[in-house]
Amino acid sequence: MKEPSHRFVLTVHCPDRVGIVAAVAGFHASKGCSILRADHHSDFETGRFFMRQEIDAATHREELQAMREAFAPIAERFNMAWRLSDVSHRKRVAILVSKHDHCLNDLLYRWRSGDMAFDPVAVISNHEDARSFVTWHGLPFHHVPMATEQKDEAFHAIDDLLTSVRAEVVVLARFMQILPPWMCDKYPGRILNIHHSFLPSFVGARPYHQAHERGVKFVGATCHYVTSDLDEGPIIEQDAMRTNHAHTVRELIRCGRDVETSVLSRGLRYHLEDRVLIQGRKTVVFA
Amino acid sequence: MKEPSHRFVLTVHCPDRVGIVAAVAGFHASKGCSILRADHHSDFETGRFFMRQEIDAATHREELQAMREAFAPIAERFNMAWRLSDVSHRKRVAILVSKHDHCLNDLLYRWRSGDMAFDPVAVISNHEDARSFVTWHGLPFHHVPMATEQKDEAFHAIDDLLTSVRAEVVVLARFMQILPPWMCDKYPGRILNIHHSFLPSFVGARPYHQAHERGVKFVGATCHYVTSDLDEGPIIEQDAMRTNHAHTVRELIRCGRDVETSVLSRGLRYHLEDRVLIQGRKTVVFA
Amino acid sequence: MKEPSHRFVLTVHCPDRVGIVAAVAGFHASKGCSILRADHHSDFETGRFFMRQEIDAATHREELQAMREAFAPIAERFNMAWRLSDVSHRKRVAILVSKHDHCLNDLLYRWRSGDMAFDPVAVISNHEDARSFVTWHGLPFHHVPMATEQKDEAFHAIDDLLTSVRAEVVVLARFMQILPPWMCDKYPGRILNIHHSFLPSFVGARPYHQAHERGVKFVGATCHYVTSDLDEGPIIEQDAMRTNHAHTVRELIRCGRDVETSVLSRGLRYHLEDRVLIQGRKTVVFA
Amino acid sequence: MKEPSHRFVLTVHCPDRVGIVAAVAGFHASKGCSILRADHHSDFETGRFFMRQEIDAATHREELQAMREAFAPIAERFNMAWRLSDVSHRKRVAILVSKHDHCLNDLLYRWRSGDMAFDPVAVISNHEDARSFVTWHGLPFHHVPMATEQKDEAFHAIDDLLTSVRAEVVVLARFMQILPPWMCDKYPGRILNIHHSFLPSFVGARPYHQAHERGVKFVGATCHYVTSDLDEGPIIEQDAMRTNHAHTVRELIRCGRDVETSVLSRGLRYHLEDRVLIQGRKTVVFA
Repeated sequence: MKEPSHRFVLTVHCPDRVGIVAAVAGFHASKGCSILRADHHSDFETGRFFMRQEIDAATHREELQAMREAFAPIAERFNMAWRLSDVSHRKRVAILVSKHDHCLNDLLYRWRSGDMAFDPVAVISNHEDARSFVTWHGLPFHHVPMATEQKDEAFHAIDDLLTSVRAEVVVLARFMQILPPWMCDKYPGRILNIHHSFLPSFVGARPYHQAHERGVKFVGATCHYVTSDLDEGPIIEQDAMRTNHAHTVRELIRCGRDVETSVLSRGLRYHLEDRVLIQGRKTVVFA
Repeated sequence: MKEPSHRFVLTVHCPDRVGIVAAVAGFHASKGCSILRADHHSDFETGRFFMRQEIDAATHREELQAMREAFAPIAERFNMAWRLSDVSHRKRVAILVSKHDHCLNDLLYRWRSGDMAFDPVAVISNHEDARSFVTWHGLPFHHVPMATEQKDEAFHAIDDLLTSVRAEVVVLARFMQILPPWMCDKYPGRILNIHHSFLPSFVGARPYHQAHERGVKFVGATCHYVTSDLDEGPIIEQDAMRTNHAHTVRELIRCGRDVETSVLSRGLRYHLEDRVLIQGRKTVVFA
Repeated sequence: MKEPSHRFVLTVHCPDRVGIVAAVAGFHASKGCSILRADHHSDFETGRFFMRQEIDAATHREELQAMREAFAPIAERFNMAWRLSDVSHRKRVAILVSKHDHCLNDLLYRWRSGDMAFDPVAVISNHEDARSFVTWHGLPFHHVPMATEQKDEAFHAIDDLLTSVRAEVVVLARFMQILPPWMCDKYPGRILNIHHSFLPSFVGARPYHQAHERGVKFVGATCHYVTSDLDEGPIIEQDAMRTNHAHTVRELIRCGRDVETSVLSRGLRYHLEDRVLIQGRKTVVFA
Repeated sequence: MKEPSHRFVLTVHCPDRVGIVAAVAGFHASKGCSILRADHHSDFETGRFFMRQEIDAATHREELQAMREAFAPIAERFNMAWRLSDVSHRKRVAILVSKHDHCLNDLLYRWRSGDMAFDPVAVISNHEDARSFVTWHGLPFHHVPMATEQKDEAFHAIDDLLTSVRAEVVVLARFMQILPPWMCDKYPGRILNIHHSFLPSFVGARPYHQAHERGVKFVGATCHYVTSDLDEGPIIEQDAMRTNHAHTVRELIRCGRDVETSVLSRGLRYHLEDRVLIQGRKTVVFA
């Protein structure tokens, strides 16, 4: 038995009731299709059921679009929010960055080495610094200045860019500007941010300075979906690293870059692989 | 929706083929039963399928024994190795210990505080040291001396004890005697050991001395099923902790106790909750 | 060369200036004494110098008290806050506990197994639950009820107990009562608390409920010195453990006990070994 | 008090005896010099003393070379192996790489972003793949083919390159060729390798395949000095990451790249900052 080279992923959430898995698994079986991996979670507080299935596309008797049509009646019966996608589809990702480029460097490396599968359709920055590096990759770089009095125009320019490149995912890879609420609302569950603290510790500005001031023994980072409620969006992934009295703020900032980088790449990977389902202000992550 | 207070757990492994999940989930649905949580894994190398399901016993129309009988034909159809158990059943656990009692202390605390659900049916030791502590818990303590020339009799005495208390699980909680092959073979997948190294590093005796000699920067521990192949049984759980040049062997041993303790308790918990399925010399752990 | 069996520890902090180490090391050398291990830290923000030295008592030509007297002029010259102690001196520790006894269980195990060196001079609780366990150890257990209208009397009764047993350290091992300011002020840098969150996240009551509500991916614990500023005392040690969407509040509480236990034991160990120096609301920990 | 911008680092190891610290600290004091940070370690097995001091160059009355000359008599008196260097000196580093370029990418990013301070004087590879990336940085790239029958010539060509660029440190950043003993011996304590396993587990070839076969629950990486004893050189740094049954060998390899990358960068950082002292086949790391 070989590792299947072609997979579909089905994610579902819906009100919990008897028969959901039977219906879905019965559907797959009726199409001759193997389930390679599945995770199910019943949330007792909200009464909702969450499911992610990887299935062997090679054994499925129908193409993706036909399969979607065939599955729709089941989804309707159980009132499902669902998504059926082809793992080989590479999501179109726009990356927004300011001056700190450690996450950008990491994500582009993961892309070009094949470590992560996505299409970087645009890198957008309010600074010119990253242009040469992005261009070396053969990728389009867009400079959108963010003068204080012209932020609204700038965000509309960014939004136009996102539309023109048909971005499916927007990654704020240390983009040091606060997105306006209309923009957060336009891309629900599609904008990922990396916050340089272990939320909910140290919300707001200069978290490493706050951490140093408080004398904590760990600093961390948080990857979350962006909502109009600053630093309050659903958390996808976090991690922390040990620090001590000998670290100055400058050293905390330096060390923190490593944890920011790894947390954002993990959070984005989960998103790209359809492992994250949002429920209210929280997430279900089938890691 | 409340957290169900009564659950069954079904574990299955069998040759992979289309329709397994559909058949099992269909069975549950036909009994009116909700799936609370499920994990599925298809192993590409062996072509086997592994599954664990927690189901809501309160919604199931049949009692455990009747359910087993009803499920048997499905199991037979797919050639399943399977186990259906009631989560409220507390497995009968015998703990074997020598002089180092840190794991024993931890396990009995977890038992008496309700942190872990099992019945400690016997504590057996080749030393008297733990008697008072075990007895304070109101638990039976058995001293079985292990004189070099009488090991065979001793192991038969232990085996008789295990039989008389109807032990379902045997935990070697730093039991510093090598079980004879006939005993390993008698309880396949039911004897858990904690090895005081990060296997396969430092097999054999005095692993902390070996670690110190080699100058490694981490020491660890490994919880594994015991087989007649010493230190080679299927690994259930591992962990490691950072060490440095300032640690003497004595300090490595002291620090190591903490990681041994936590690794054994996690490994045993997985076993008690039917999260571990053995495949050859490896495990599938639905943690 | 053998590991020295008898050590002194000297801790110092003072305004930084040239010649501190030369004076101190010169003092040791003049007494024929070997430095086994030393850590020095210069804090640039406060301009203070911190030092901890372990020295070989066997090579020192003077006894502890005479040595203190001989060192005093140096301490005065550099305006040092200092402490010179014999490692073999076991600090007198009082443990306060309410109903949750996981930290108590751990600390008493570490004491009776020799893992940690201290004298548990009293266990004090506002509940009777732990009496039998404490008594089994041959240790004194004191029940001090905490009726709402009699808290002030209760805290004075506890303070009297601490005085009568000459406690040098007070450990709040999940003691669920807020100490009055006069009591915090009476034992500065001598009362350690374990807070069941990764401070400054989730201050106040029910941190695991807050963590579950927020959907964080880690929960943690914090060991800190108690001051009259609730949850704001200098942090000694922290740690965190991964959680996920499947954990209910009850499971977070259960998992969290393990991290609380290990963080408190590490924090207390650092304190007992004179590894912690307080500077304002932060600590220097020479781990 | 400001963070000093100019520092010297002194590392020392020598037979332990009374008066070493007094002599060294006295020397600094006599030059008007502040000790910013110091670590001392006495090794009981070998009877050797290890020390690292960061001192404030701005307060020192002499330049580096004069200071070395002034310190030499003290070093001689105590039979010290020692090194006194200026932190602002950037060590000259040659990086050897084969096809896997994740460590190369990371190290060059840390260099160009200022995260790590060194001079990358050459990148040498037995493949052409990395040329464009290295050249974009404005760094010299050297292709040295490694045909089986011409390995000896190839290694001499590499050695000539190292000589011509005056490399002080050689980093094998996933260089998949075994260095000949004469080359290992020529650069003692100056060649760092990243091994893709948690040594001493899985020595030799294809460690991730071995790890998968054994069913371990963690995979790791080891940064060590290269000696002519393959995979047996002194370990500088290690780390490990959790894996599980669902990871194929391919996924282990992918995940493992992250831990290889971080372990090599930490190990190299320790080396560059003169934090590593070698004692036999082990290291003292003042991290």
